[in-house]
Amino acid sequence: MGSLEDERTTTGWAATDPSGVLSPYTYTLRNTGPEDVFIKVICCGICHSDIHQIKNDLGMSNYPMVPGHEVVGEVIEVGSNVSKFKIGDTVGVGCIVGCCRNCRPCKSDKEQYCNKKIWSYNDIYTDGKPTQGGFAGSMVTDQKFVVHIPEGMAVEQAAPLLCAGVTVYSPMVHFGLKESGLRGGILGLGGVGHMGVKIAKAMGHHVTVISSSDRKREEALEDLGADDYVISSDATRMQEIADSLDYIIDTVPVFHPLEPYLSLLKLDGKLILTGVINTPLQFLTPVVMLGRKIITGSFIGSMKETEEVLEFCREKGLTSQIEVVKMDYINTAVERLEKNDVRYRFVVDVVASKLDQ
Amino acid sequence: MGSLEDERTTTGWAATDPSGVLSPYTYTLRNTGPEDVFIKVICCGICHSDIHQIKNDLGMSNYPMVPGHEVVGEVIEVGSNVSKFKIGDTVGVGCIVGCCRNCRPCKSDKEQYCNKKIWSYNDIYTDGKPTQGGFAGSMVTDQKFVVHIPEGMAVEQAAPLLCAGVTVYSPMVHFGLKESGLRGGILGLGGVGHMGVKIAKAMGHHVTVISSSDRKREEALEDLGADDYVISSDATRMQEIADSLDYIIDTVPVFHPLEPYLSLLKLDGKLILTGVINTPLQFLTPVVMLGRKIITGSFIGSMKETEEVLEFCREKGLTSQIEVVKMDYINTAVERLEKNDVRYRFVVDVVASKLDQ
Repeated sequence: MGSLEDERTTTGWAATDPSGVLSPYTYTLRNTGPEDVFIKVICCGICHSDIHQIKNDLGMSNYPMVPGHEVVGEVIEVGSNVSKFKIGDTVGVGCIVGCCRNCRPCKSDKEQYCNKKIWSYNDIYTDGKPTQGGFAGSMVTDQKFVVHIPEGMAVEQAAPLLCAGVTVYSPMVHFGLKESGLRGGILGLGGVGHMGVKIAKAMGHHVTVISSSDRKREEALEDLGADDYVISSDATRMQEIADSLDYIIDTVPVFHPLEPYLSLLKLDGKLILTGVINTPLQFLTPVVMLGRKIITGSFIGSMKETEEVLEFCREKGLTSQIEVVKMDYINTAVERLEKNDVRYRFVVDVVASKLDQ
Repeated sequence: MGSLEDERTTTGWAATDPSGVLSPYTYTLRNTGPEDVFIKVICCGICHSDIHQIKNDLGMSNYPMVPGHEVVGEVIEVGSNVSKFKIGDTVGVGCIVGCCRNCRPCKSDKEQYCNKKIWSYNDIYTDGKPTQGGFAGSMVTDQKFVVHIPEGMAVEQAAPLLCAGVTVYSPMVHFGLKESGLRGGILGLGGVGHMGVKIAKAMGHHVTVISSSDRKREEALEDLGADDYVISSDATRMQEIADSLDYIIDTVPVFHPLEPYLSLLKLDGKLILTGVINTPLQFLTPVVMLGRKIITGSFIGSMKETEEVLEFCREKGLTSQIEVVKMDYINTAVERLEKNDVRYRFVVDVVASKLDQ
């Protein structure tokens, strides 16, 4: 790798068409600008939305596309104005690498809601070039969108916190759900859902996992520490827990009826959607009105909240459950993730794949 | 009329079947119990939900049914434990005349959300007898569900505040929307919507009426004092006001798409539904998630909030726009209300109809 003045290349694994199959792809990185951090990628989590992107499910994909937005790496070089990071630091990059800095969300440290935010990949950076994600040897990222990984936290543990973790943590904080003693529901037990159980338990909540089948009962109760496990088609149990929950984090990324879950909420209870679903969801107004229930959604978290969730997990000794794989396993991992066949997050050991050598 | 010990009758106008046609009907009132107030009805507003009830739109109607839940009257007699009211007081009764007093909503003065609340009509009271509403000569009501009408407020002005008024006021207070300087939208300009414009203006908000047609533009801007009027099919204007509103009070009582209105809301903006709709509403999760927007609903208001809205309107000199009619016009009024042919609320002058003489 060269100095600030040289043009650098890196090799990532890119999708080249909507089949979504990833293969090695070498591309140019911008020079490390005054505000930039040059990062050697150590590992990167695979998120369900990576699949939406590589397969063009949302009709907005550009190829070649290197996905990956749960990136942990080592700082190799810093720009002249970078004071927050130094060479050798372990750092993280999440879903966003740019924002306008002038809008209301930006000015109130909620840059994830900036209408001009720049995604970590499948977007165009301020220099007019495509952004590329973390399944690559290295990345150059503006320091504003880089966070410190707390000392003592394993890198592969940190990766899922950068998207899945903060996706749960941010709405809990924003909607006043951080206090202990609350009763929460987690709908869907994938990457985000399993972090939901762990974070809610760490906040001191009574946590009920609501699932379509009995398959994950034992692991939810024993491995993740949930207090209750209810199958949504079990009318008796659903009736028993009606009107009892302060919130539900709904992580299901496909169409599902909302009434059964809305009826589990107390007065002023909150149904918080975190899954991008491309068919409309439905609800009946009386179900919402007669309990002043809230249907809302939340999108990842701010940089500040990303730092907070990392610190929260370090403090609480909270770990995610992951399966670490190599780069050349990624297409199989994507296939398995599509079938929900992972407990609960794949993390790719990027550095071991020696992409840039 | 007799004393505390006698059985009393009153005459109201009742629907006797789902045609919803009202005609005179005489029935027994309970004796004035220790907590009860015996009220001679002076006037009563006609609410759109009266139509749902008399026509059995929700499949839960029992006949004969005397509707009416915006009741203003004079106290004729009080029970032995009644200290809040005295003979001759002008008082109001709204949608609810009973609650369990033990649940979480009841204990926090949100009795409108009690699951065992008793409706003013088309419900069964604690004595096992049907409740009957305000289109009648008199009512006996537990003092907990009776409010003082502020001195100097015209009785026919007070009536619409007891349902339409508090329906708007309650969510504005609960969702932190009482501060001046906010930008609000009012969707639908009927009984509730027109109170929405007036109350929001009185709170110091910039108010945009969003309507399906141009029909009410002049009256919205000139008579009601709205600041802007946008037709929902006008893509240019809708785009202009995108991402600009702190809240929308959605009073439309029939199916309508939510996306066009959700896109008008700022980050953390609130869409507050107040209309009972018997077909499901729909939304796409990204529209909600990417602005952390809230879809919620609200149901009338508490007794405390009913007192507050009366006092708020007195203080601000806020009046509703009503058309006062006689009891024998009620079937015509219902027909006209169904066609949205009223500016903006019918109030029946009950006392002039001398039902109990």
